[in-house]
Amino acid sequence: MKPAFVTEAGIETTLDALAFNRDGLVCAVAQQHDSLEVLMVAWMNADAVRETLTTGQVCYWSRSRSVLWRKGESSGQTQRLVGFRIDCDGDCVLLLVDQSGVACHTGRRTCFYRDVDAEGPKTILDVETDPSDLYGKA
Amino acid sequence: MKPAFVTEAGIETTLDALAFNRDGLVCAVAQQHDSLEVLMVAWMNADAVRETLTTGQVCYWSRSRSVLWRKGESSGQTQRLVGFRIDCDGDCVLLLVDQSGVACHTGRRTCFYRDVDAEGPKTILDVETDPSDLYGKA
Repeated sequence: MKPAFVTEAGIETTLDALAFNRDGLVCAVAQQHDSLEVLMVAWMNADAVRETLTTGQVCYWSRSRSVLWRKGESSGQTQRLVGFRIDCDGDCVLLLVDQSGVACHTGRRTCFYRDVDAEGPKTILDVETDPSDLYGKA
Repeated sequence: MKPAFVTEAGIETTLDALAFNRDGLVCAVAQQHDSLEVLMVAWMNADAVRETLTTGQVCYWSRSRSVLWRKGESSGQTQRLVGFRIDCDGDCVLLLVDQSGVACHTGRRTCFYRDVDAEGPKTILDVETDPSDLYGKA
C-alpha cells in the first residue's frame, strides 16, 4: 500500500467502512511495521483518517485538546504510514507505521512501558530521549 | 510474568494504575506473544482485569451484551495471558496472549483482515475456521 496514492474515491470507501462512535471517533493502534512493536493507541475522526491517507503521515484527533494532532508536530517524532487495516466491526484501525524516534511523550519507544508482575506494574523500558529535548524546556 | 501468580495486592496496584473511562472501561489490545500479530481490540472493566490476572485466561467486558466476556467461552478460541502491559496514561492495556485458533468471530486469525489500497479496503485474510463450526448452526 502506498498511502499517498489512495484515491479520493478510495478514501471515501474507507470512511464508509468505518463505524465512528458517538464522539465521531475510531480507535487507532499504531504498530511499527517491521519490528511489530505496538507503539501507542490513540483516536481518529474522519478528518484525521482523510489527512493520514492523503499525506501518508499519521494524524490523530486529540481528545484532550479537541484538535487534529499531527503526530510529531511539536516533538518531531513523526509516524510515516505504511499500512492501514480495519477491523471486523469497523470501529478500530491498525496503523502500520515507521516511527521516527520515540512514540511516547515520556521519551520511551512505546507507551506500553509498564509490565505487570506478581507485585503489580513495573517500568520495563528506559527513557531514550529526554522529554525536554522533545518539547523544549518550559 | 506468570499471571496466575499475581498477588491480590498486585492486582489492586494494577487497578490503581488504570484510568477507567466514563463507562468504567479501558481499551485492550490483544497481541499474539510470539508472532506479534495484533489480533483484536476490545474493552475491560475492573472485574475483567481482575479475572484475567487471577485466572490467566483473558476476560473482556462486552459492551453490546453488558456482561463479562470470557474470550472463547462459546467458540473455544481462548486467549491465555502471557503478559499484561499498561500505557503511559493508563487508559489502555496491551495483552500479550497465546491465541487458541482464531481471534475473529468471522473465523479469521485476526480482526484486522481489511487493508486499504488505492481503491479502498480489501480483504487480505482468508477464513480459517467456518464460523458455524465456532458458534453452531443457528
